[in-house]
Amino acid sequence: MIRVLVWNEFVHEKTEDAVLAVYPEGIHQAIAGFLSENEDFEVRTATLDDVECGLTEEVLAETDVIIWWGHMAHNRVPDEVAERVYNAVLSGMGFIGLHSAHHSKPFRRLMGTGADLGWREDGDWERLWVINHNHPIMAGITERYIELAHEETYAEPFTIPNPDEVLMIGSYEGSEVFRSAVTFHRDNGRIFYFQPGHETFPTFYHKQIQRIITNAVRFVAPVCERKTLGCPHIRKIEKVT
Amino acid sequence: MIRVLVWNEFVHEKTEDAVLAVYPEGIHQAIAGFLSENEDFEVRTATLDDVECGLTEEVLAETDVIIWWGHMAHNRVPDEVAERVYNAVLSGMGFIGLHSAHHSKPFRRLMGTGADLGWREDGDWERLWVINHNHPIMAGITERYIELAHEETYAEPFTIPNPDEVLMIGSYEGSEVFRSAVTFHRDNGRIFYFQPGHETFPTFYHKQIQRIITNAVRFVAPVCERKTLGCPHIRKIEKVT
Amino acid sequence: MIRVLVWNEFVHEKTEDAVLAVYPEGIHQAIAGFLSENEDFEVRTATLDDVECGLTEEVLAETDVIIWWGHMAHNRVPDEVAERVYNAVLSGMGFIGLHSAHHSKPFRRLMGTGADLGWREDGDWERLWVINHNHPIMAGITERYIELAHEETYAEPFTIPNPDEVLMIGSYEGSEVFRSAVTFHRDNGRIFYFQPGHETFPTFYHKQIQRIITNAVRFVAPVCERKTLGCPHIRKIEKVT
Amino acid sequence: MIRVLVWNEFVHEKTEDAVLAVYPEGIHQAIAGFLSENEDFEVRTATLDDVECGLTEEVLAETDVIIWWGHMAHNRVPDEVAERVYNAVLSGMGFIGLHSAHHSKPFRRLMGTGADLGWREDGDWERLWVINHNHPIMAGITERYIELAHEETYAEPFTIPNPDEVLMIGSYEGSEVFRSAVTFHRDNGRIFYFQPGHETFPTFYHKQIQRIITNAVRFVAPVCERKTLGCPHIRKIEKVT
Repeated sequence: MIRVLVWNEFVHEKTEDAVLAVYPEGIHQAIAGFLSENEDFEVRTATLDDVECGLTEEVLAETDVIIWWGHMAHNRVPDEVAERVYNAVLSGMGFIGLHSAHHSKPFRRLMGTGADLGWREDGDWERLWVINHNHPIMAGITERYIELAHEETYAEPFTIPNPDEVLMIGSYEGSEVFRSAVTFHRDNGRIFYFQPGHETFPTFYHKQIQRIITNAVRFVAPVCERKTLGCPHIRKIEKVT
Repeated sequence: MIRVLVWNEFVHEKTEDAVLAVYPEGIHQAIAGFLSENEDFEVRTATLDDVECGLTEEVLAETDVIIWWGHMAHNRVPDEVAERVYNAVLSGMGFIGLHSAHHSKPFRRLMGTGADLGWREDGDWERLWVINHNHPIMAGITERYIELAHEETYAEPFTIPNPDEVLMIGSYEGSEVFRSAVTFHRDNGRIFYFQPGHETFPTFYHKQIQRIITNAVRFVAPVCERKTLGCPHIRKIEKVT
Repeated sequence: MIRVLVWNEFVHEKTEDAVLAVYPEGIHQAIAGFLSENEDFEVRTATLDDVECGLTEEVLAETDVIIWWGHMAHNRVPDEVAERVYNAVLSGMGFIGLHSAHHSKPFRRLMGTGADLGWREDGDWERLWVINHNHPIMAGITERYIELAHEETYAEPFTIPNPDEVLMIGSYEGSEVFRSAVTFHRDNGRIFYFQPGHETFPTFYHKQIQRIITNAVRFVAPVCERKTLGCPHIRKIEKVT
Repeated sequence: MIRVLVWNEFVHEKTEDAVLAVYPEGIHQAIAGFLSENEDFEVRTATLDDVECGLTEEVLAETDVIIWWGHMAHNRVPDEVAERVYNAVLSGMGFIGLHSAHHSKPFRRLMGTGADLGWREDGDWERLWVINHNHPIMAGITERYIELAHEETYAEPFTIPNPDEVLMIGSYEGSEVFRSAVTFHRDNGRIFYFQPGHETFPTFYHKQIQRIITNAVRFVAPVCERKTLGCPHIRKIEKVT
């Protein structure tokens, strides 16, 4: 059983009718909805409105994979909560950053970069081209590209460290390109960042987008016991078997 | 002094007027022309018409960096010549593959993959987006992207191993994307592949394209003595200093 | 069900008593033995003695993962057979190279390098240090290192391309180091190379070595349909959804 | 002219006779000493004793490459100073972390990991094995390994992200291994981490260690203008050339 926590700042949905119309119960519920169809997933949600953002040590200790959506309220996540999430990832909790989560405190912390990019909101179409079809996160994606009728445009340079693997590159109506589906690991934590998911578009209802996020949950789930290495003082090994 | 050998199959230019019009002395002479403006480069050329393709052991031993352009005549390069080039790269000769050289015998051999891609010739514009401005090959490229009015379209998946670094990603009028400027190393040899350079377009007269190729020559030039490692039988180190 | 083919040149075992004593039925049978305990694996074996080395197109088409052990008889594998294996990997068949398979024809072909290294046979102990415990191939390996009382010493530089990931680094009694557990991908094929497994030592009876090879089978098994991309002539996408 | 700033916490040298004996003027002066022999370097130093650790915005703006040595006083570098250094690296200032700088605030911040490792101080010898001789940082290192009679032992797992390139792997008397010479980049900043350099040993007087650090200065020096990308709101490109 993989214990998934879908975290959403949950602000746009309560303040903008255009967003409410697309995600009436919040982006987190839309994501939790399709993930819950997997019998091996146990899915919960949390938002900014919860005490400590719903991200206490206890919650994180019981989370195998966190999915993060945030945009306009990154700074309302307290530093100590962001640091707690960061440390949980280092100890082995998987992290999936969606769309504007590129600028969330935990993701930037994990990258060690600004995680900056160029952006514009002109409702362009996006095509997400598959770079490597034979990766577990791409399982079931047989097409050359996935097309989204409307997405926010994100443009390179995307200032991330070299990813472990680039799985998809997106292009937009205006010709911009973006490394849209990328993997990393940090200490024991496995990470997936996925670019689509603007709040005003029904991206999270797209079957192949759902499939990729579902695959990614399995990919970033920890395979070893959660543990922070620390800097142990070791002893010289004296004898060979 | 960096000794550069520009190799061109030199077939299109002699059989198609459209190509001859753009490169009247051959693509190799166009490339050798702008490279020769660098005082630290000593530039020669060779083509399919030369004995052994102009790629004898002696020539390769005196070459620091080879630049390869080929397209319709990949198979007219004898296997033993391609293997000779491959072995020279492993020993430390730098290799720059341009455009359709992705399917040349030496490049595929060095990749260990098909080096396949999708392609079409509709004369699309291409925009080459810079991913990492602070790399020696990108020195002097300050713009976000380089625009070419017409290029052949190359589309992902481009079946190469994970590059050491992806420096540019191209997009085309038809929305395709392509990892256009990528580095690799193989044994002692440093490698750069660069996508632009279709024979019917004046790509090699573009100042920024010239700058990138010039930078790449310096980047792939060997820094250590040319040497094939082989598989030496070593002896146990008995004593510490 | 993962269809595994264990290929062994099967020469040492028939010519050297010291090897026969350790692997009386051949290294391939020792490996097939522990793999067969997995209910989701269907395990077969093949050797140099079989017609076409047991590696016909039909056999390869029905193989999800090939495990390769070879040492003194690399050159008795015909080029066309090696090329067939190479092409099967590019189409998606997983490849696990063990020990001296670093110099096998298929592995060198897939690397695009000499895959050279320094070596000596002094019966040193080896310690295989884990670099990343949270990788599927390391599942169940909780110790800091695995110790083998005797192994052949392999020394860097190991002339491979940058691996997708380095999972273990070995050190030996004589202080040499070696990237011992490394992953790659080539087109659709996933690859794992694992250094231990000299013919005169009981390495393949070691439980943790068995565990790593077992994990690796699952890791390199294809997740997409087997397919060679080729270089398709594509058409411009005219319309957006 | 490359403007180098050698930063040292400069604590051990003033409190421990054993360190003072080796580096009577401080580790920073020893490093500045050999670097100053390069006519293209302009070398300054700074320590914890300076106002704001000698790391004001003005100083950092005039620094092309910072070299960092710290060990027992990491926490005496104020967070805002560490963040300033971090931001300077993102904008393009090169960073060389030496030895226990793995746990310095700027380095951990740039890694996005704990940068943890195992350690012991038994005065073991260390051998630094070269992985890739044909890299600019290894220029002039022709031997298979560099031997240091005494060093502090650092052991994997070293919890860093996958490096851009691993140039050396160290092994110790007790068999531990460590990725000792590794490169990264973060936004516009190029980074080199190098493991040797314990305060009680004369490591920084070793000619080949000096050569590697000197080469690294040239490698991490910026090639583009210093600039923080930020997250620009871009406009749709309307017309092709």
